[in-house]
Amino acid sequence: MEPTFVRFDDVHPFALAEGVSGRPLFGSRTMLNLIEFEPGAVVPLHNHPHEQLGIVLRGMQALVVDGVARELRPMDGYILPGGVEHCAYCGPDGALVLDIFQPVREDYRERWEQAAL
Amino acid sequence: MEPTFVRFDDVHPFALAEGVSGRPLFGSRTMLNLIEFEPGAVVPLHNHPHEQLGIVLRGMQALVVDGVARELRPMDGYILPGGVEHCAYCGPDGALVLDIFQPVREDYRERWEQAAL
Repeated sequence: MEPTFVRFDDVHPFALAEGVSGRPLFGSRTMLNLIEFEPGAVVPLHNHPHEQLGIVLRGMQALVVDGVARELRPMDGYILPGGVEHCAYCGPDGALVLDIFQPVREDYRERWEQAAL
Repeated sequence: MEPTFVRFDDVHPFALAEGVSGRPLFGSRTMLNLIEFEPGAVVPLHNHPHEQLGIVLRGMQALVVDGVARELRPMDGYILPGGVEHCAYCGPDGALVLDIFQPVREDYRERWEQAAL
């Protein structure tokens, strides 16, 4: 892989859930996903084997784990180990969040490539 | 590892270079490092085997690879494969940057733990 430079504004988005879209950047061993939540959008309960780290950049994103909702605001970060069931919702102003996954989510790559067609 | 939630403002910083400090969040397989550049600060030429991805959040960070400087601004992202020699500098207003490394930089963990003493 070569050094790569992108403007996230130029990366086409793909749908993560209703009102939630992601702009990914795929490394060979880890990836970023810049996520935009429209006001009031929700990511339903799910889990994945990938380790997930993240940081809220704008607005409020709540992460719900084991039935406990944590409201996260700009410069709040998190680690969700692989396999932890979680859902997410945002506040009335939406949210901008950066998620990191290890390893790369090949399911996201497929969906992102499909979204370009 | 358990699900973990942090405020980066509450994470103590460690020095990366003169005028450059980082606030890390260590997962088990990947890590974040929220980096603050003071105006005009420079990270000297270096390399590491870890894959590095990142995004500029505020200000301007230039990454220099193979003698070519790329000036990166908010919502610009990058991938530096392991082993690629690079240096960085910021503009007159400083910069806030999020770096991601895979695997975890144990050298950073040691320096961060030392910085708490």
